[in-house]
Amino acid sequence: MTVRFGERVRSALGAQGPLCVGVDPHGALLDAWNLPRSAAGVREFGLRTVDAAAGRVGVIKPQVSFFECFGSAGMASLEDVMRAGREAGLIVIADAKRGDIGTTMDAYAEAWLAPGSPFEADALTVNPYLGVGALTGAFAAAEAHGKGVFVLAATSNPEAPTLQTAKTATGETVSASVMTTVSAFNASHTPAGEWGSLGFVIGATVDADAAGITSANPPAPILAPGFGAQGAGPADLVARFGATAPTVIASESRSILSAGPDGLAVAIDTRIRTYREILDA
Amino acid sequence: MTVRFGERVRSALGAQGPLCVGVDPHGALLDAWNLPRSAAGVREFGLRTVDAAAGRVGVIKPQVSFFECFGSAGMASLEDVMRAGREAGLIVIADAKRGDIGTTMDAYAEAWLAPGSPFEADALTVNPYLGVGALTGAFAAAEAHGKGVFVLAATSNPEAPTLQTAKTATGETVSASVMTTVSAFNASHTPAGEWGSLGFVIGATVDADAAGITSANPPAPILAPGFGAQGAGPADLVARFGATAPTVIASESRSILSAGPDGLAVAIDTRIRTYREILDA
Repeated sequence: MTVRFGERVRSALGAQGPLCVGVDPHGALLDAWNLPRSAAGVREFGLRTVDAAAGRVGVIKPQVSFFECFGSAGMASLEDVMRAGREAGLIVIADAKRGDIGTTMDAYAEAWLAPGSPFEADALTVNPYLGVGALTGAFAAAEAHGKGVFVLAATSNPEAPTLQTAKTATGETVSASVMTTVSAFNASHTPAGEWGSLGFVIGATVDADAAGITSANPPAPILAPGFGAQGAGPADLVARFGATAPTVIASESRSILSAGPDGLAVAIDTRIRTYREILDA
Repeated sequence: MTVRFGERVRSALGAQGPLCVGVDPHGALLDAWNLPRSAAGVREFGLRTVDAAAGRVGVIKPQVSFFECFGSAGMASLEDVMRAGREAGLIVIADAKRGDIGTTMDAYAEAWLAPGSPFEADALTVNPYLGVGALTGAFAAAEAHGKGVFVLAATSNPEAPTLQTAKTATGETVSASVMTTVSAFNASHTPAGEWGSLGFVIGATVDADAAGITSANPPAPILAPGFGAQGAGPADLVARFGATAPTVIASESRSILSAGPDGLAVAIDTRIRTYREILDA
């Protein structure tokens, strides 16, 4: 029987801690790793990152755009990297931020969440601008296949608040409204005591009060980019997320990847220890 | 010298009318066309649609998800279809609705807008959930390369209003705020009397009053999906868009594609005539 995605994440975070390794082969990092800026370069970069992450962390997050910019050949490299990650037992979150309506959204869900699909991942990040309701086909596909979806809720980039703190007709912020609607779906699909399989993207440095967001109910995984080089450190995990901290997947990219291919494993181990010390304290 | 995208659209609409042919090879249409549900099937579907569209309309809009669901092989088919469309003189709008921040967004812009890139299109649809400001790298790339961007503003699907009519701190709706911010970029990059190269996606059946949107200033192309099978007819072009109607790219997919490969050219000709009669009246 397929284990639900929310429970898979819960087990992984419990066993291996919150660290998620971002697979972000952008140009400057490819240069630093002495890899070509090409489809072959991002493939090699991704496979080496998977090798270093396997057995150390529970989750990796390939950033799709850095593969997509090399066209279909780059996307073939992404297939190889995601397959290697899944075969190594890692939970692979495809950070593609797809979002559309109807049969178009269903096609994205099929692309990234259908078992046996070339781009099969364990979860996909999605964008709710067209309405959370427009994503329900993807939510249903995720539940059907033991997969997950992470809905953009509150991001920490400076350009985000204008839209994300706009007030809906009920007086909620957009971010809160997204979480409320997604949580309602989780509530009707999640056995009592388990975690929902529909998670949220919430930036590591988001001001939760300004964003108007509270804890998800039922609990659900929070994918938090922005740890490491983007300003938040492991200590922020508890300081910012409070009681919700145990559900947070702390994604780091540059802070780990800048160690280079030979320093990668040590960099991961060091960060894991730091998170463990913070969470144990 | 590169002609700016806004002016290219203006010329195309003036010469060939508002009809844009959507290239949407979803499963049911592939079946109806006796094509396999595969990367080869979507390639053939796309190339035949390009053949029928070439010389008849000015603009085509491939829906990326229907290629992406066949993995990197499907994306290679999309490369072939977009190349064929551009070589036939069509303006190719990649309907991918990408949206991210910083170097990640820049990588999407490079993927779809950089000359010589495998996925090179003439324009890309983008999603502003992370803030319009997060898209400025893509805006700058578009201006630099004579390309265009269409920002999701107001869509006509029933799930959209909760978020899109939420009120920002200035009292504007989210949709209006998106248009205001994008128009400010257009204003500072568009020579007097020309059209902006950053356009908007506005659904054909959107209630402009409820969405709080007014005419763009400077004028800019409006990509309006939802004509044809989704409920709006050619008569709605003037009725709904009023003075803005001359800037509208009226995108139709199923209403044309359901004619099948052999009926495609006639179906396009018939729709073109209907739009011309309405606009001439």
